[in-house]
This record gives sequence, C-alpha cells and structure tokens, in this order.
Amino acid sequence: MSTLRQDADAIIQRAFHDAAPDAAVKRALVDLPEIRGRLALVAIGKAAWQMANAAYETLGAGIDSGVVVTKTGHARGPIGELTVLEGGHPIPDARSYAAADAVLRLVDPLGPDDLVLFLVSGGGSALFEKPSIPPEETQDITQKLLARGADIVEINTVRKRLSDVKGGRFAQRCAPARVFSVVLSDVLGDRLDMIASGPAYPDASTREEAFAIAAKYGLKLSDSARGAFERETPKTLERVETRIVGSVRQLCASAEAACRELGYEPVVLTDRLSCEAREAGSFLASVARFHANSGRSLAFIAGGETVVHVTGTGLGGRNQEIALGAATGLAGLSNCAVFSAGSDGTDGPTDAAGGFCSGESYAALKRAGIDPADALRNNDAYHALQAIGGLIITGPTGTNVNDLTCALVRN
Amino acid sequence: MSTLRQDADAIIQRAFHDAAPDAAVKRALVDLPEIRGRLALVAIGKAAWQMANAAYETLGAGIDSGVVVTKTGHARGPIGELTVLEGGHPIPDARSYAAADAVLRLVDPLGPDDLVLFLVSGGGSALFEKPSIPPEETQDITQKLLARGADIVEINTVRKRLSDVKGGRFAQRCAPARVFSVVLSDVLGDRLDMIASGPAYPDASTREEAFAIAAKYGLKLSDSARGAFERETPKTLERVETRIVGSVRQLCASAEAACRELGYEPVVLTDRLSCEAREAGSFLASVARFHANSGRSLAFIAGGETVVHVTGTGLGGRNQEIALGAATGLAGLSNCAVFSAGSDGTDGPTDAAGGFCSGESYAALKRAGIDPADALRNNDAYHALQAIGGLIITGPTGTNVNDLTCALVRN
Repeated sequence: MSTLRQDADAIIQRAFHDAAPDAAVKRALVDLPEIRGRLALVAIGKAAWQMANAAYETLGAGIDSGVVVTKTGHARGPIGELTVLEGGHPIPDARSYAAADAVLRLVDPLGPDDLVLFLVSGGGSALFEKPSIPPEETQDITQKLLARGADIVEINTVRKRLSDVKGGRFAQRCAPARVFSVVLSDVLGDRLDMIASGPAYPDASTREEAFAIAAKYGLKLSDSARGAFERETPKTLERVETRIVGSVRQLCASAEAACRELGYEPVVLTDRLSCEAREAGSFLASVARFHANSGRSLAFIAGGETVVHVTGTGLGGRNQEIALGAATGLAGLSNCAVFSAGSDGTDGPTDAAGGFCSGESYAALKRAGIDPADALRNNDAYHALQAIGGLIITGPTGTNVNDLTCALVRN
Repeated sequence: MSTLRQDADAIIQRAFHDAAPDAAVKRALVDLPEIRGRLALVAIGKAAWQMANAAYETLGAGIDSGVVVTKTGHARGPIGELTVLEGGHPIPDARSYAAADAVLRLVDPLGPDDLVLFLVSGGGSALFEKPSIPPEETQDITQKLLARGADIVEINTVRKRLSDVKGGRFAQRCAPARVFSVVLSDVLGDRLDMIASGPAYPDASTREEAFAIAAKYGLKLSDSARGAFERETPKTLERVETRIVGSVRQLCASAEAACRELGYEPVVLTDRLSCEAREAGSFLASVARFHANSGRSLAFIAGGETVVHVTGTGLGGRNQEIALGAATGLAGLSNCAVFSAGSDGTDGPTDAAGGFCSGESYAALKRAGIDPADALRNNDAYHALQAIGGLIITGPTGTNVNDLTCALVRN
C-alpha cells in the first residue's frame, strides 16, 4: 500500500500536469468548432508561447497564420510559420502597440467562415494594447487613480474604455469571423473580464460607472478621453466561445479526480482560500482529526492563495507554512496528513514547491530539536520541513494557477 | 421563507438547548439500566446542581438517596431529599474532603442489585477529593511539577495516584453496585479520563509512568507517596456504563440535525477547531463562496474553541471575530452567511454570545463607516457587529461545551 506521502506526491503530479498550459490547451482544443474557412491563431500573455506551441503540436498545418505576443525572454524558439513577438510588461510600450497592430492586421480580413483561435494568459493586458487616446494620457489617468486610492476594479473599468482591444473590443474587431477563446486563468474566482482585461469577453462595467469613478477621484478628462468614456464596451458578444483552462478550479478538479483514483472520497472545500497560511493548516488538521476515526478515506481539497505575515527572518513560503501549521494538530494520528504546493513549483524564495506533514511530523520535529510554533514565529518552515523530509520539490512547472492544499484521512 | 439570520438563530437555539445539562441528562437517562435494588445519585462538578435537578425531575422518588457536590454559589436550592454540598475550587479544601466522605458513606453499603447514578461535570476534580497522602504533600508535589515544567498530562498522571477517588477508584469503591455515569464534557476531544480526573473511568496511565515523571522532575517521594505511587489504578471497570452528554461533538450533531430540518445538507467539518478566530472566518467565507452557485443548500459546521491574539483595545470575543473575519470574503453574495456563538452564551467580555455576517454585511459596515480589517486589528468586533445588527445575544445558557461555528449557503 502507498504511504500518505506517496499519495500526496501522486495527487500533486496529476493536478499540476493537468493545469500546465500544454495539457490544458490540448484538452480545450477537443471542443474547437469545425472550420470551413481559415484558422488564425492569436496568443497573448506570459504563457502565450507555451499555449501556441501546444496548439501547433495539435493542429499543425491546420493553422493558416498566427501571431504570438509574449514577455521578453518567454519565447523558446520559432513555432512553425507563426510570428512570435515581444511586448512591454508590466507597462505597455511601443512593442505592445506594434504587436496589437500585427494581430489586428491578421484578423481584419477574416470572413464569416473563418475562425480566430485566441489563446489568452495573464500579462496580456500590457503585452497587447491599442490605445484609443494618447498613451501618456492613459498613464496620467492611471497614476492619478492609484494615488487617490482607487481600487483595481475601478482602475480597470476606466482603462478598458481607453483601449481599442480590451473589454471585449478585440472580439468585435474579429467579427464577422468566429472566435474560440482559450483562457488560462490564474485569477482567484475566474473573473474572465479581468484576465488580460478581457479582450474577447463582454464587459460588465458601464460608461456611467466610468464617469462616476472619474468624478469620485476628481479626474479632469480631455475631450478625447471623454469621447473614449462615451463609447460603450460590448455587453454581449456573439460568435465567441470561451474555454477556461488551467484555472485554480481545474487544479482542484484534477486533484479531486486523482484523490478518487487513489481511493479517497474527495471533498472540494474551496478554490479561493485566502486566509493566513498557518491558520489554514491548523483548520485542516482539525478537520482531519475529526474524521480520523470515521472509517472513511477522505480528501479535503482547497485551492487558492493564502497569505503570510512575515515576523521572522527564516526561510519558507505560504505552502510550507500551511503544512507546518498542521503539524501540531495532526500529532499522533497515524492515518492523516496535510500538504500544500504552489502550482508554479516555487513557494516563497525557496527551491521547494510546498510542504507535507503527517501525524508523525510533530514527534519528528521534536526529535530534531525543532518546535513548530517557534519555527513558524521565525517564518522558517523551510528548515523545519527540511529536517524531517517534509519538503515537496517539483522544480518550476511553467504555469501558475495558485496553490493546491489537501488534508488526507485514510481508513 | 426564513432569512439566513433566522436560520442561524434557529440552529443556535436548537443546538444550545440540546447541549444544556438539563436536556442532555434527560436524554441520557433513557438508557438507565433497570434497577432491582436502590438507586443512589452522586453529582459532582460545576454543573452538578443542574444535572441532579434534571435527574430528579425525571426520576423523582425513584432516587433513594443522593449527594450533590458543586461550587460555591452554583446550587440553586434544595432538590427533594438530596444532600447538596459545596466543595473547594479550584483548589480542593476540607469541604472537598468532607463531600467525598459523604459520598463514600452513601455508596459503601450498596450491594450488587443497587445502582449509582453518577453525574460528572468539569471542576469535579477539586470539588470532590479523598487524598491518599497528606494534602500538603500533594500540593507540594503539584507545585514542584508545575515549577519544573511538567505538562497537564504528567501532573494528572501523578495526582491520580495520590487520590482514593480519581482515576477510576471511585467506581471501584461503588462495587459491587453498578455505576451509570453521565459525563458532561466541555473538553475538546472528550478525554474521559481527564474530566474531573475520571472517578469512574479506567485510567490509561501506569505507575511506571508516574515513577518516570517523578524521576524526570527530580521529585523526592516520601514513603507514603511512594506507597501511593505503587498502588496501580484500575485498568478496566466492570459494571460501569458511561454516557457522554453535552459535548462539543453533540453540539455539532444537534446543529447538524437543525440544519437538515431547515433544508440544508449539513457537513460537519470538525469538532475541534482551534485556529485564530478571524482566519477561521475567512476560511469558511471562502468555502461558502465556492459553493454559492452550486445549486445546493449547504451548512458547513465546525465546533471547537478558536483563539484571539489581542493587539487592540476594542471589545469583542472569538465568535464575534469569526463572523467579522468572514465579512470581506462573503461580500456581495446574496445567499451566504457565517455565524459563530459560544455555547455558554458569553463571548469574551461582552453581553453577546457571538456574531453573524452575511454577504450584505461588508456593504453595511462600509455604510456605517467601519472597515472590517481595521475593526479586527483593534479587536473591536463587538462595535462593528453592533452597528449592523450582527450580534447574537442569547443570555447565559448555564452550560459550556465550546463554540458552534457555521457557514450557510442557500440555493
């Protein structure tokens, strides 16, 4: 029979593999509509190269033309005949505007029988941009909003109106061609209008809201900005189909499937965990302890991104703190474990992806002369887990869809 | 249709009622064995009066004789012909020894057809004591152990050996009469040998362990103490039946039943929640948000006792911090709520038992000019919840079996 640690490693491997852009894109392409005309590929974002490469491996010569826009250093070589460009990030620059122009030149001639395969990942908002007012003015407005305390939703509501490609406008430009949009989501809760500012997704915000935000923060709008505010973003988009892939929700679903295969009854608790890391560990340990003698094998799954308030000078990361935070609550249980790992394979400034603690970890830590509470106070989960073989090391995975946390109870 | 707040109040009322000593004792008495001889009642602990009174209401003249030993001020009047005594607490005193003598005089003459109804609650360890060595010596040993860093398990292992009624010895004294023991548990995890030092429960610790503890902390044992250490506590007790009532596990089970009646699918997560209060609130809010659109009505139930690290000067309690800690994570959800309440009806130094927040609470707080994060930093959950009608006020309940926390999702 496998150990709890082996189960944890198998669950992580399966979930991280499924969440990787390559696997995720290939899975989504199963639903690609039948194409009577041309197929144009457009990929934007930090994972654009990987996503485009996966699509090319699947569709190959079926792709008639394409433009890939990613961050400097993120392209790993040519992909067939596709044009691979770099844009500015995190601030859009002339390369971002040139990239948008190249993409628009590609899609403008397309007709109703044609299809745009649009691959979107985080960072696309900066890498791919066609400003509708002078960029300096956009920057000035953004800086004023930030300085005056506007939140990210307010800033995005305004910025979408100052762009010809954000807030669903790119999809409008693709018409009459159809758009099949594959969105790699690393945003908690999958708000599709937020990822890359939603170039192919209907905008939920309104011009009235934009004007209200301008008034609230005392913005003086130029005539051109006022004109951009007036022009409403699309509220519906026909002929656009969207697949969300690689999201934290999918990470949880893959973990769920992996747990079931290993004989656990999976219970997905949440995909947007956001509390203090060590307290999540304590919470999950108390859940495991309650079910330890239930006679059932259970896996409680939580996706999300916890936080760590640093008070010490040690080494660690939020996933390692979750695991170490569970050690005391699990102490003495022979059939329970809590583990957590970041889907990018990197947890904090360490070479570990996360950590694992079982009911034996507390005693092992004590034998090693380590008090888990002291280690947490010093934010030194890395060395504590290292001492007991509790680090999870996967290496960088090339994706980032938040963290996977799990409490296992085996009966 | 009821509101989420009405549901919360109904769940709390049902669970707290079931967990109260009166209801709990009456439920347990359904299993009372048939009595051919005499029925003697012995009640010890802080809830002894309430438990004995409930038994008297049920059995009345069926009780032949009885002794009730409780804390000063906890007796609320005579109960039939029962002898009501007061013992010392938290340190046993002459009254505690006199009480034990009275109880032993009651049970010593009993025969095999007779039954002792033994009602046990917290505090019984001090209120009811028959020392097997001079009390000053017990006190000296205890103080040395405390000063030298012994933990509560080590101290109890030693102290059980210095008593003629702890660690199962009272049940031995009752033989040949049968013992029906009803234990009101407010200890997380229901360790029966810990409640009132387990007068009618087999002792898991051994004399070897006791000697090892003495050696570890450098105790010099007198001859009488050594003799007491030598005498082993009972490892099995025949003719003793035990019912645990009013435990936090039962609190959760009652809440589970109440939730089911209200149309929720209940999921008991744990009965030993012990993490930071506000982080438990955040965790449960993320669980509620994940399931908000699931189409299912769900109730996630957690019992236990969270902690609060005080950093501010405000007013509140751990249950109020759980509720306020959920407000941000629930913001905007029309069908979700998180509430928490202490089963004693008192949360921190306030007149509230706990708090309630729904998806509307965040906006209500903002309208009242209150930032939930600021209020938590100042440990001022009471005034924040008061401003939005989020306090739960039950008044003192006369019991204490930890806290009940719940996340509701209604679809």
